[in-house]
Amino acid sequence: MTFRQKLIAVQRKHHSLVCVGLDTDPALLPDHLRNSGEGVLEFNRGIIEATQDLVCAYKPNLAFYEALGSRGWDILHETLALIPNDIVTIGDAKRGDIGNTAERYARALFVDFGFDAVTINAYMGYDAVEPFVRDPDRGAFVLALTSNPGSKDFQRLKVGKQPFYEKLIRSCVKWDTKANIGLVVGATQAKDLKKVRALAPTMPILIPGIGKQGGDLRSSVRFGCDKNGELAVINSSRAILYASKGRDFADAARREAMKLRDEIRQHQSDFFATSR
Amino acid sequence: MTFRQKLIAVQRKHHSLVCVGLDTDPALLPDHLRNSGEGVLEFNRGIIEATQDLVCAYKPNLAFYEALGSRGWDILHETLALIPNDIVTIGDAKRGDIGNTAERYARALFVDFGFDAVTINAYMGYDAVEPFVRDPDRGAFVLALTSNPGSKDFQRLKVGKQPFYEKLIRSCVKWDTKANIGLVVGATQAKDLKKVRALAPTMPILIPGIGKQGGDLRSSVRFGCDKNGELAVINSSRAILYASKGRDFADAARREAMKLRDEIRQHQSDFFATSR
Repeated sequence: MTFRQKLIAVQRKHHSLVCVGLDTDPALLPDHLRNSGEGVLEFNRGIIEATQDLVCAYKPNLAFYEALGSRGWDILHETLALIPNDIVTIGDAKRGDIGNTAERYARALFVDFGFDAVTINAYMGYDAVEPFVRDPDRGAFVLALTSNPGSKDFQRLKVGKQPFYEKLIRSCVKWDTKANIGLVVGATQAKDLKKVRALAPTMPILIPGIGKQGGDLRSSVRFGCDKNGELAVINSSRAILYASKGRDFADAARREAMKLRDEIRQHQSDFFATSR
Repeated sequence: MTFRQKLIAVQRKHHSLVCVGLDTDPALLPDHLRNSGEGVLEFNRGIIEATQDLVCAYKPNLAFYEALGSRGWDILHETLALIPNDIVTIGDAKRGDIGNTAERYARALFVDFGFDAVTINAYMGYDAVEPFVRDPDRGAFVLALTSNPGSKDFQRLKVGKQPFYEKLIRSCVKWDTKANIGLVVGATQAKDLKKVRALAPTMPILIPGIGKQGGDLRSSVRFGCDKNGELAVINSSRAILYASKGRDFADAARREAMKLRDEIRQHQSDFFATSR
């Protein structure tokens, strides 16, 4: 099954565009799990068990596991083993390198960890993308337009009449011969998201910035989805992970994830004809 | 001692601009060390012992250690412990993220591993640079202009009248309030390197692409150095690491490193007045 097929299948099966970002911070865990690697693993287990029927994807952020040292690597492996096979896993690594270095990153992420997809940075050009998209069963989300203040520094610079990120997206569309390239587009720019979707009508778009970061959910669904109301992957991390600081963290996470899924379904039914 | 002071001190002490890239590939090691993590560590030990008086820096490429799994993390720690304290260590990670993610990468690289400097990707703007340059004792080399074919895809796009990478360098110069930002500029573009040095007269420039990748050493020295004939960091990886495939690999690496250092010194004396 290709990466794209897998993503669509789980979005339909779970009626969900929700991705839970596993940015698990030992300092923010409930008291009984706080500040230990084992606590991170137990916390991830609780989150995954409580939300797995409500999501289309989990997205561990590599930085949070690297910060735990070599044990962090094992915890990430063990976390991935807890995720049911039909759910998409995205390694949020934002790797950006070329040649044998990129091949090594791809091997570590796709083969050793077994991620279905990764996030990458394309500043070095096609050579930095190609090693991650050789296998149609694995996908790569290219950083396109982010929602942080610094996104104006380079991403929005004008190249001719178009902003730089638009040029980057046009290149990605051209390179997407195996239908396994996606884009990362921040949730706070509704009109930009609309433009991105017009440029890349059939690509998965990973949208961070929902929840604590304050993106506009309704316009993310409206403009982030393809014409069938699918292929947006809407990430929430902290609002779900840290919904409660107590022993009921998993139940609270489930409630938040369900609320987000259902809000998204409502918006989908408002904007798209396909029944879900 | 600031990062910059440390770099200048070791360049003067060792009369060397040479950086050895520790891109240690288990499959390319001499037979008696091949294809094991312990072999990688023993190999690195041999290379470091044989070259430490000839270099200003070592640059482990994180991808090669990540590909070894959790043991790779330990091997990288153990490798760093073998490097004398007065030599600069550069974590070639090309990380590019923001906020608490970038802070976590910075902590992993600077605090846990203890690197003096890292390579980073600034596509996300100032937010992706700032977390890596808070401490003047630690430096960050920002990817500016690379020498791979894909460098034309984005880096050389025209923003107004200047190429994109020039715009990026001007931003880095503006952001460099603690004198600890450097640039990564490929070795194959002499006239571009000249322009980069003019834009950033006092920044360290990390120049990969020497050796097996075929960069022009003479122009890298001429245009990569500052006005004192310093602050270029000229990286060679494979030509030194794999100079011999036999048990004499360390001796062969020493010969190659010495040859490179001495060629650079010759070019320095041709172009710069400062006695060294």
